[in-house]
Amino acid sequence: MADGKTAASARRPSGQRRADAQRNIDKILTAGLKLYSSRPGVSVAEVAEAAGVGRVTLYGHFPSRTELAKALMDRAFEETEAVWQAVDTSGPADEALDRVLREQWHLMERNRNLRDNVVGDVSPQWLRQRHDPILRRIEALITRGRDEGAFRTDLPLSWLVTSLYSLVHAASDEISAGRLTTEQAPEILSASLRSLYRR
Amino acid sequence: MADGKTAASARRPSGQRRADAQRNIDKILTAGLKLYSSRPGVSVAEVAEAAGVGRVTLYGHFPSRTELAKALMDRAFEETEAVWQAVDTSGPADEALDRVLREQWHLMERNRNLRDNVVGDVSPQWLRQRHDPILRRIEALITRGRDEGAFRTDLPLSWLVTSLYSLVHAASDEISAGRLTTEQAPEILSASLRSLYRR
Repeated sequence: MADGKTAASARRPSGQRRADAQRNIDKILTAGLKLYSSRPGVSVAEVAEAAGVGRVTLYGHFPSRTELAKALMDRAFEETEAVWQAVDTSGPADEALDRVLREQWHLMERNRNLRDNVVGDVSPQWLRQRHDPILRRIEALITRGRDEGAFRTDLPLSWLVTSLYSLVHAASDEISAGRLTTEQAPEILSASLRSLYRR
Repeated sequence: MADGKTAASARRPSGQRRADAQRNIDKILTAGLKLYSSRPGVSVAEVAEAAGVGRVTLYGHFPSRTELAKALMDRAFEETEAVWQAVDTSGPADEALDRVLREQWHLMERNRNLRDNVVGDVSPQWLRQRHDPILRRIEALITRGRDEGAFRTDLPLSWLVTSLYSLVHAASDEISAGRLTTEQAPEILSASLRSLYRR
């Protein structure tokens, strides 16, 4: 695989070259996540420029738009997983969901925008498969809340999950429109979902 | 203004020609509403074909994409207004909102898709101005529910309105995904908004 190495980097010890390559990959994914989640129609050249690497280097690591899109989604899902791991989900499910929401909602929103903007580059099957573990975690938490008697059982589980995503998206739109602040949003989201989910 | 009239129609009395023209306009708007609310990128030629009128006739009535888009949104808003007029909004606001939702949600959803697909053809200012009367009606109903003590006052009015639109859209997506039926959707929407709005 071409990795865009220069004559100078080719002379470095391979451990150093691997570290350089990893640093470039990180820069590309960080810049790519930011660009791809902000608007549609981002070009690979724009990502390379924002990352401060050459296009040859970028293509060395991600030979196609699809490879780059998959790596961005993988990184996004890893970050989301990491936040799930870090949040304390023990204790009553309704309180756990509240903590998850406060920690996760910015990532959920970013991932949604990201997904909308890579949807032409990766298959829906691939996206669904990668997103499934996160969806399962949300479903499991809602199911636990139902078993504990805190959450309603008169509406379909899928609807409760969808409402959550839908209100997260709405809150983000309200921030963009200047009708909510980023400080208000998680409070309002939590209050809304508590009411919506309560038995 | 060219109106694509044939030699035959030109010989008819002008009352008859006006009736023909109105019928063509109706056919164009009906077909246009259906096409424009189903997918983006609809061409004027497709609307003419679906309406069963010639392109010259269509352009005679709507000389530009913008004129057509405005006429479609105007028709959509008229239909929405007509449904508001027909729904009994007397009595407690929470029950009135329930009736409005059951009658309106299909139109609200269609109008939302329509708006997304004409957004390149008309200005956001124009759209907002036309949508304002409907928004005001929803706000007035929620405000009445707050005054009556049925609806919560701890969340911003704008957020309650946005949640309503957001959940209407979510319900429509769930129908498309085969996770809700068109019969279930209004029940589930009503139950969700009752919980979300309740003081």
